[in-house]
Order: sequence, then structure tokens, then C-alpha cells
Amino acid sequence: MRIAISTGGGDAPGLNAVIRAAVLTAVNRGWEVIGVKRGFAGLLGEDEVIPLTRESVRGIGHLGGTILRASNRGNPFCYPRKQPDGSYVAVDRSDELMENAQRLGIEAVITIGGDGSLEIARQLCHKGMRVIGVPKTIDNDVSGTVTTFGFDTAVNTAIEAIDKLHTTAESHDRVIVMEVMGRDAGFIALHSGVAGTADVILLPEIPYDIGKVCEKILARDAAGRHFSIVVVAEGAYPKGGEVHLIGESLPGQAKRVGGVAELIAREIQAVTGKETRSLVLGHLQRGGMPTGYDRLLATRFGGAAVRAVADEKWGHMVALQTPHIVTVPIDDVLKEKKRVDVAHDLVQTAREIGISFGD
Amino acid sequence: MRIAISTGGGDAPGLNAVIRAAVLTAVNRGWEVIGVKRGFAGLLGEDEVIPLTRESVRGIGHLGGTILRASNRGNPFCYPRKQPDGSYVAVDRSDELMENAQRLGIEAVITIGGDGSLEIARQLCHKGMRVIGVPKTIDNDVSGTVTTFGFDTAVNTAIEAIDKLHTTAESHDRVIVMEVMGRDAGFIALHSGVAGTADVILLPEIPYDIGKVCEKILARDAAGRHFSIVVVAEGAYPKGGEVHLIGESLPGQAKRVGGVAELIAREIQAVTGKETRSLVLGHLQRGGMPTGYDRLLATRFGGAAVRAVADEKWGHMVALQTPHIVTVPIDDVLKEKKRVDVAHDLVQTAREIGISFGD
Amino acid sequence: MRIAISTGGGDAPGLNAVIRAAVLTAVNRGWEVIGVKRGFAGLLGEDEVIPLTRESVRGIGHLGGTILRASNRGNPFCYPRKQPDGSYVAVDRSDELMENAQRLGIEAVITIGGDGSLEIARQLCHKGMRVIGVPKTIDNDVSGTVTTFGFDTAVNTAIEAIDKLHTTAESHDRVIVMEVMGRDAGFIALHSGVAGTADVILLPEIPYDIGKVCEKILARDAAGRHFSIVVVAEGAYPKGGEVHLIGESLPGQAKRVGGVAELIAREIQAVTGKETRSLVLGHLQRGGMPTGYDRLLATRFGGAAVRAVADEKWGHMVALQTPHIVTVPIDDVLKEKKRVDVAHDLVQTAREIGISFGD
Amino acid sequence: MRIAISTGGGDAPGLNAVIRAAVLTAVNRGWEVIGVKRGFAGLLGEDEVIPLTRESVRGIGHLGGTILRASNRGNPFCYPRKQPDGSYVAVDRSDELMENAQRLGIEAVITIGGDGSLEIARQLCHKGMRVIGVPKTIDNDVSGTVTTFGFDTAVNTAIEAIDKLHTTAESHDRVIVMEVMGRDAGFIALHSGVAGTADVILLPEIPYDIGKVCEKILARDAAGRHFSIVVVAEGAYPKGGEVHLIGESLPGQAKRVGGVAELIAREIQAVTGKETRSLVLGHLQRGGMPTGYDRLLATRFGGAAVRAVADEKWGHMVALQTPHIVTVPIDDVLKEKKRVDVAHDLVQTAREIGISFGD
Repeated sequence: MRIAISTGGGDAPGLNAVIRAAVLTAVNRGWEVIGVKRGFAGLLGEDEVIPLTRESVRGIGHLGGTILRASNRGNPFCYPRKQPDGSYVAVDRSDELMENAQRLGIEAVITIGGDGSLEIARQLCHKGMRVIGVPKTIDNDVSGTVTTFGFDTAVNTAIEAIDKLHTTAESHDRVIVMEVMGRDAGFIALHSGVAGTADVILLPEIPYDIGKVCEKILARDAAGRHFSIVVVAEGAYPKGGEVHLIGESLPGQAKRVGGVAELIAREIQAVTGKETRSLVLGHLQRGGMPTGYDRLLATRFGGAAVRAVADEKWGHMVALQTPHIVTVPIDDVLKEKKRVDVAHDLVQTAREIGISFGD
Repeated sequence: MRIAISTGGGDAPGLNAVIRAAVLTAVNRGWEVIGVKRGFAGLLGEDEVIPLTRESVRGIGHLGGTILRASNRGNPFCYPRKQPDGSYVAVDRSDELMENAQRLGIEAVITIGGDGSLEIARQLCHKGMRVIGVPKTIDNDVSGTVTTFGFDTAVNTAIEAIDKLHTTAESHDRVIVMEVMGRDAGFIALHSGVAGTADVILLPEIPYDIGKVCEKILARDAAGRHFSIVVVAEGAYPKGGEVHLIGESLPGQAKRVGGVAELIAREIQAVTGKETRSLVLGHLQRGGMPTGYDRLLATRFGGAAVRAVADEKWGHMVALQTPHIVTVPIDDVLKEKKRVDVAHDLVQTAREIGISFGD
Repeated sequence: MRIAISTGGGDAPGLNAVIRAAVLTAVNRGWEVIGVKRGFAGLLGEDEVIPLTRESVRGIGHLGGTILRASNRGNPFCYPRKQPDGSYVAVDRSDELMENAQRLGIEAVITIGGDGSLEIARQLCHKGMRVIGVPKTIDNDVSGTVTTFGFDTAVNTAIEAIDKLHTTAESHDRVIVMEVMGRDAGFIALHSGVAGTADVILLPEIPYDIGKVCEKILARDAAGRHFSIVVVAEGAYPKGGEVHLIGESLPGQAKRVGGVAELIAREIQAVTGKETRSLVLGHLQRGGMPTGYDRLLATRFGGAAVRAVADEKWGHMVALQTPHIVTVPIDDVLKEKKRVDVAHDLVQTAREIGISFGD
Repeated sequence: MRIAISTGGGDAPGLNAVIRAAVLTAVNRGWEVIGVKRGFAGLLGEDEVIPLTRESVRGIGHLGGTILRASNRGNPFCYPRKQPDGSYVAVDRSDELMENAQRLGIEAVITIGGDGSLEIARQLCHKGMRVIGVPKTIDNDVSGTVTTFGFDTAVNTAIEAIDKLHTTAESHDRVIVMEVMGRDAGFIALHSGVAGTADVILLPEIPYDIGKVCEKILARDAAGRHFSIVVVAEGAYPKGGEVHLIGESLPGQAKRVGGVAELIAREIQAVTGKETRSLVLGHLQRGGMPTGYDRLLATRFGGAAVRAVADEKWGHMVALQTPHIVTVPIDDVLKEKKRVDVAHDLVQTAREIGISFGD
């Protein structure tokens, strides 16, 4: 058996652990493994394919990044082709990809990626490619799995930052607004905010009222707690119909990271009169060595993906349904993004211990 | 409503986060909270009870240890009383405890502890005390819950140690045997060993054959990998009927920490001729700031315990059954300890990527 | 003897360790210690003074922040007084401060602070107050001492961030520009940049040429290294006479944190065509637990400050002149700020291993 | 110019940063660099020599371990040769080494190592080899330099362990005795003990009286501090002429790590009646990623070593004499080991804040 592994989309701590586990599991079965560089670009002649052996994955299990490089563009169904005038048009190169895969003798593909990559996987599957998906999202917004690797690391990075901001906020009587990743789902903000004992947490799932946010801050002030920590997901937006400017401008500014924190910080300072600062964690959340949790989950996903190939679960994605790794149809997964369940006990407990969601 | 909180047994990162969440949740309901120091010793006049207010739990959510102190002895049904000759006899002081609790106006008790404390809780419950349990175990060996707080921190501490040992083992062509906690259950060894990419993992659930362990080490040597990392749970023992000396002597030596690693290291050195070192992580696994995962789980447990009081779930323990916090009867929990399921996909994947369990 | 301790200016990891060591040393000599809250505000009736005992400093040696709170305004010679119309005028309240200190029986003051606080100390000294200074600066820009506490922690925080950015920059072929503290002196940028193996480091001491920066990035690209890490001190500015906009606007915008990174990132992207991102570390550098180095230096400073009081070294500052702690006249210290010596072997080695300073 | 780099003795965090800086500096001068594996074994045909290029040292600056492997035996003047009967005799293979070096065209050698390796370097120098030394010692016991790389990392590892033990010692009213490296010099114990706020620190430089140690512990107990942390260097021994058993047995047991902590723990428990535990940090101190301080110092040493070659400072060692890197004759360095100066302000401050040295 000859299989290929590809990774799509952004970086996530644990990618190398998935690759390592999949390669070792496959090689120990006597299979051959090919690594496709930069999403599917390696299968379109725009980057390379490399053999993945026991040696290739030595000592990478605890490293961040990915030995296969990440990719932000390689959708073969909609591939950017430069025109003579310098502009780009999207072309369908999926047939070319299928041919190249066949020519290389690739019998199955394990593709590690988020919603975008899984959608590509689904379409390739319908074209006849034998694909197994492995979910990858820092934001934890892929359906069908309790969580994905990279999320725990991102949450711990955010918590560490909140811990650091706490001492300086308290020493200086300041409000600090920290922005974390999460365009559509507020899991990082919720988890890091509760674990870091933030005072206010703003999520895309719970539109906020800036007045309520300031009320909380002023109530703390009145009770002798002259500082506050606000954790905000980048996709948080204000209540009441009117769409948040930052949210609105996102589609056209896909590369912008951050911004909502500064806006909210200004509003808080204007309303409360308290010195307010903002900070955008940005790419720090994608980097670094994966936590134990993420290394384990990534390893389990890698091993399970190879077993799914052996079991011919084409079009399925491996997933955590605690305590087991299962496979679920990618079609089902893509029906909707996972979002924070606002009735979940974590949100309830957060409210009960006094955290405001600005609503 | 006036409730009491007590913690029993050893230290676990996250205890303070449970206490903080329970106190804040209760106080925000208008309840009063009393903290019992050192297990139940505070209710037997051998330590104190203290009021727990919003102020008492300020800024403790991320700290290790417990503001209520830990306890290794306070079983009221079997309490050590010093005799004139200096020896101890066990006496039943449970009636005294019930009276003291009543006198203090305690209407319900949230008790945070492992098997031992939960057994006491069960018995007190049968005497009429209204008790809610919160599971606490570094080893992750309490049934009825997917996991408990403290375990993730202990696993990450062990992984960090393995990461450090890796570079020095590799530089010096050594075998290093690292001993982690786990008398009856090998969860810490299994999780840290896989995440830390150990070469051999020895668990109480899989009796080992030292010959197989050495085979693995020599096979690596032959393949040019001149070092090996062995992670061993303190309760691991050799195959074949004959009980391991260290395991056998445990009951009488309750205070000994570690020992099996050194024994195994000597055997490996004798058989393979390779320079072999051992290291016992010991108390490092109980200390330090809890990870994000543990802070969150502890916070959820604390909030859920107060809700369980409100719901009058006497004799129940809060538990994680992902993704929900539920309550389960303590009677059921105590029927058997949780152990590593040797058919679990994590064990299977570990084997498939080449880790030896010495069997 | 009754002494007071005050801390001025921003937060720095190690402040609590200085306070702890000074208090324990003084108390063990039989002295009394008073803590002045928020710089000198506590001596002007705008905040409080508190007794500092063995108990007050228990368990604070490893914590960030300061139990005496920080202060950004308390200059008694130039104190902001609110006018009926809401505006502020600066008034000289130094006589009032001297009287209050006398009334409280304060015989000497240990003041921990940066240039601003040391200048106040100098002036108070000339008015007759018996003052010992302890240098405090994240930026390491105080003269007369090899280094100060807080700097090593800030450098390690910055390195950890660079380590995280490395994996994601490499995976995505990106340029990442990270901004660190340092308005006048580039020590944090230089030390974290070299230790984190940045490719370009921009300092206030070496005006840069954006063309040279881009040359370096493109040369790496041509050599197959498609990513680059640029570390920039907030006070870095371009070569050639024309003052950098950001630098220029600083005096009027004292509260702005960051900005130069984004500007430089835009220029790099425009010139090189490479996807470029920026990140401002900001307050993360001031927070968190001090490193071992900083805890030790802070402890030594605290002990030495009390000995300087005993030796009546009024108007002196404790300082590290490796391997000894000495005292130096504050007058001398204030003559000029310490800046990076561009002929130092660290800069030379950085150049020799291929790091560009954009010059 | 063709130079060689060799590393001798045990592992130390920062070795790779030295190698990287030396290689890049040399290559950027147009020199060739050869890496000698396992001390000088690579020059005796018992391991290999490898070319070191820009590519060889890519991305290793922040990694622990050494790409040249460590060595515990390769003294060419006293090389172990196996006899037909299995025993070993020491033979002088230095002529063979000189010839091999000449045959490979090696014009100068940078040797990174501790006392042992520097002694070899000195002798090779006298035979005509052109050698530059780079000091390497976790223990900080090499003369002529303020400090060496690896020490700061080891101290921080020890502090982190003390921080973890603190919470659990305090929760359980225990005494914990932690053993750190330091056979002849107690720098790690002193620095980590003060920074970690230990209560007792035992050093080889200050023989201890167990009675004084117990007095301190009991005095704390009486003052309501029912736990104590004792940090002990492995070479600490009791006062009064009689040599410590552990110390005495060291020469014959060169490979034993640890032991004194357990002995002292037993004595403390016997005398004070307090539950006492011991822990040996062991190899954890040698591993892991170097701190910022160590990465910088290592980088500076690497660069300076190449400049010393260019300056033909044969027989010299690079050294830190703050704030400069200088070169000192190896002959002078080897005259005596550096030990803790018991009159240093750090020891004085430690005493003044209440730490006992057991004397």
C-alpha cells in the first residue's frame, strides 16, 4: 500500500505528531508513505512530494510547525493562476491533481486540515480519490469531534498571557483587553478566560452590550478591585442588530489579525474613565511545542487515520468521541461549524462565579 | 444555606480552583461557606474551621496546593489516638464529627478527595450527613469520571521531564528509566510515555518481561539508536506469577516513594551492558500551577458541586462524562478502581508506532 | 530604626523579591519597615502606608507584580492637582511629603525605581531625606549597574515568543516583525533577538535602512529560507536624518504601546512582496514570575539596600558590578542613560553569525 | 583555514548554541569546519568526524543536547583499551590523535569542555596542537570565567522544582530535601535555594551540623511554619572532621548520582519527628532547552572562540569577565576549581533573610 499525507490551512501545534504517528503506523505495516508539501500544491507541481520514512519523523513529535509546510491557498478546485497582467483567476486543477496522484501510485490520502481542507477532501472523494480526513483547528470549531489537537496548546498560551497581564493590571489599576483567536467560535476565549479568571469574556456566540461590560468593570472598582481583565474572541461583536465594523470588514481583509480588542478598549476607557490597554495574542497561539494533551490526541489521530485507511473508511474523518477515536462521514461534519453551546455547564459556572459575558 | 468544604488525601493541582469556584458559586447564591482544615481534622477539634468568603479565594485559582491543607490521616471512623505509651490505636470519632458539624450549623458538606475520602463520605452519608463528593486523584484511577483535575498537570510535568532526559540520553548513548506515580493504574506512565515518545512503557495493567524490555533496547541499538527512554509506573511488576518485591513491600512502607525504576535500571544494565540511569519524579508530580485543562475541570467541578447541593444529590459525586458534568452515586464509584483499558486505542496506537510494553 | 520602602514607575518582575529581602533583612536587624503605596502617593495622603512584617512578605518572592502597587504619576515635585474645571496643574508637594515622612517617624527611605523615581530620590535627598535607591528597569537602561532585575524575565518572555513565531513563520513562508520594549535602549531586542536566532534586529542605537532590511530577507529567500523573523525595539527609527514618525510622536502619546512593528511590516511587504505580519509583545514583558536570575538579583539588591542604610550611604543606589553589589551615587547614575554599546562583542558576534541590524 | 570543534564530558544546555555560533562565524569568514564526534573519539577512529556547514547548524540554537554527542571517556592520554580477558588498560593514544588531526588538515581545534577536557586541551597544546578552549560546566566550577552556559538553565530547572515542592510541602506539613548537582562547588544549590526561598541550603563549601539544620526546621515549626525546604548539593558533607560516607564513596562510584539527600532526610525525620521526603533532581538539570541567558553566553563564546583562533590565542580559553568576553590561559584556569565564596554578598544576604547553611 502506498499512501500520501497532506496538511492544509494554518499551523497548529500537534501537526508533526499526527504525521509522525501516521508514518510510523503505516511503515510498521509495511506501507510506503509520501508527504505532499503545502497542502495539495505538491501534487500540482508547485511544490514537491517527499518520501516519509521512519527517519523523516524522528524526533519531531514534540515540535511545533509541520515538516510538510502549511498552505493558505492550495484549493485545487479553485486554484489561483496568475494572468499576464499580474492579476489572478481561479482555475479547476482537480483533474490534474487526480492524474498526478495516480501517476505517483498513491492509493489513499490522509489529509489533515480544517473546514476548508475537509471540503476539498470531500470533493476529491466524490471524484474517486480515497481520502481519510484528520480534523485540525486551533479554534475547536470542527463538528463531529469533541476537540482537536492544537486547541489545548492555544488555550494554555492564552492562559499564560492572562496570568502575566494579571500582575501588571493589578499593580497599575488598569483594564486590559486581550484578543484571542476565534472568528466564528469563542472556545479559546471561553476556556482561557475561565481558567485565567478573567472578569469579562466576549464571544461570537453571545453578542455583547458595551454598557454591561463597563458596568461589570465599575462594579469591581467600587468593590475595591481596581483592575479588570477582558478576554475577547476576534469574532465577538456588539448586540442589537447593528453589525460590528470589525466583523463586517473581515471578508475583504482576510489577512488582518486582531483589531476588536483595541476598539473595545477605547470604548471602555471612554465610558469608565479607567486606563485601558489592549493586546492581540495573534500568531503566538499557533506556535510552540504542543501540550501533552495535544501530543496525545494528535498521536491517536495519526494512528487512527492509518487504521481508517486499512478499514477503507473513505470520505470519513477521525474524531474524538471521548473516550474513543471514531470515524464520522466528512459530509456530516461539514453541515455546520461547531460553536460554543451557551447552555453548557462551563458557561453556566462562569456566570455563577461572577464572570460577565457582556449580555 | 450553610455548607462546608473539606479536602482529603494528597495534594493535587487544581484543588484551589475547585474551592474557589465552589465558594464563589455558593456566595453568589447567598449561602455561607465554612472551610474544614486538613480533611476532617477541622471537625474533630484537631485543626480549625474557617469562614470562606469571596476574599478568601481571591487570586488562588491558578495556584497549586490547597488553602485548606491536605491530610493523610483524618479518617473519623478510624482515627489514630495516641496512647500513653506512645503507640496509636484507631478509634471511631464519627459521632463526634456529626455533632460538631451540627453544632456549627453545617447543612451540607462538599468533600474533595480520592477513594479514601470518598469512602469516608459514603459512610458519613449513611450516618445522615448530606454529602456531595468531588473526585481528586493525580493517578486518574477514580471510576465514574473520564478524568479528574491534577492528572493533566502531572502528565505535563512528566512529559517535560522526559523531554529533558531525551537530549541527555541521546547525547550520552544512555538508557534512562523514569518512574512516575501510579500504584494501581498506569495512566500517568501511559500518557506521558506516549506524548514524550518513550521507547518502553511499563504499567501495573501489563506485567512486564524484562527480557522483552531489553530486546527492545537492543533492537534500537542495532538500528543506530543508541539511547532509550523507559517510563515506568511505580506499581509496575514483572510477569509470570512471581510478585515484584517492590510491589509486595508497599503496604508496609506506605511512605516510600519510588524504587522500581532503580531495580529495573540495574536489570537493564546487567542484561544489555548499556549505561543505564534511573530517576524518580516523585512529589514534583503533585506540585505546581495547574494546567489550563485542570483549572477548567476543577472550576466546573466546583460549580457543579454547589448545584448538586442545591439539587440535593446527597451521596453523589460530580463527574466528567464528556462533554457534560454529571453526578454519579458514590456507592457505584467505589465498586472498583479505574485502570488502563489495555484494549483502548491509545494503547493500540502506542504499540503500532513501536512502543514496547514489555509484554 | 524605622525605614520606608517605596516603588515607583512601571511593573517589573522581581519587585516583590526586592521588597521581601529588604523587609526580612531589616526585621532580622530589629528594624521597623513601612511600605508606601503607589510610589510616593502613600506619603501624600492619596494612598496608604502599611506596616511590612515578616508575615507581609511571606510567599511573595516568586510572584510578579508588587504588593506596594506601581505608580505612573507620583512625582511630589510636580504632582498633578485637579482644577475645578477638570484640568490638571502640577504643584510641588515635596514639603508636605517631607513632613508626613517625619510625622511617621521614617528615618530612611529605600526607593525602588527607574530614572524618574531616581531623579525624585535625588531631589528628596537634597531636601534632607535619607534615601537609598534600587534600580528598576525592564529596559536595562539605567547606568552604573551591569543589569537590573526584570530584564532577564522580559528577555526570556520575548525569546519564548520568538520560538513560537519561528515554527509558524517557517511553516507559512512568512516574515514576522515582533516589537519589544525599549524606547531609548535596545537591550531587550538585542538579547532576545540573538538568543531567539532572529534574522534582523532593529535598535534605537543603530538607525536602520529599510532597504538593507529587505535585502537580508530577500537574500534568505534566495538561499531557500523563505521566512524571516525581525525583532524591533519600540524606539528603533530609520537612518538618514529624517526622524521616524512613531518616534517623533512618542512624547505626546506617552500611553501608546507599540506601532513601529506594523509600520515596518507594511514596508517589508511592499518592498519584498512577502506576506508579512506584525506582533506587539507589550505588557506581556512586564508580567509573570521572575526568572531565577531576576529573583536572585532582586534579593541581593534588597539585602544590599538595607546594608546601605546601615552604612548611611544616602543618595546612593545599589548596583551590580559583577560579581559584587556596590553602591554608586545617584547623581552619577542620572548623568546619562545606558544604551547598547554597538562595539560590544555581542553585537559583533551577532553580525558575524549573519544577523542584520539594517545598517 | 580548516578548524575542528570537539565537545567533551557531560551534557550542558547551550552546547549546540556554541557550535552553531562558532560554525556560522567561521563559515562566514570562509573557513572550513569539521566536527569531531564524542570528545576526541572521532579523531581516534572510534567515532566519526563530520563536516559542519551552515546547514548542519540550522535551527539548533535553542535545542538541548549536542549534535556532536557527549563523551565520558575520550582522554587520548589515558585511553581505555580492552584486553583479551575483557579488562581495560589505559594507553596513550595522543600521537595517533595528532597524526589523524594532521592528516585531516586540521589547523586548529576549538574544544568545549570542563576541567577534564581543558586538561586534555592543555596537554595537546604542549604537544603542538593549536587549541582554543571553551569552558563548559553545569556546576559553574571552572575558574577564570564569571559563569558558563548551562548553569543558568540548571538553576532555573532546580528553582522550578522547588516551586513545585513548596506547595505540596506546605499543604502536607512536610520537610522536603532536594538534592542538586555540585560535587565540589555549591553554586546550583546556593542560587536555586535563594531564588526558590529554601529554608536550609547545604553546600560543599560550608560543612553542616545536622543539629543546626534541625534547629532551623523546629524553629520554623514553632513559628507556625510547619514545612521546610532543604536544598543540598550532592557534595555537601557534615562538619567536624568525620568525612561524609557518601562523599567518601564517590571516587569508586563515579557514576552514582545522588544519595546525600536521602541520608539527610532520614536524619531530619529522626531528630525532628517531622515527615521528611527526599528527591534527587539528577539528569533533569542537564537537559532541556537553554534559557535566554545561556543561549546568549553560548553564542558569545562560540563567536569569541573563532576570533581567538584568528588571533592565534593558542592554549587560551574564552571566558566571561562581565561585561566582556576575554581569553585566559588554560594553564591558569586549571590551577584551581572555582568554589562558592562564602563571604560573597549572596551568601551574606541569604543569611540575613533567614536562610540557614547548617553552620
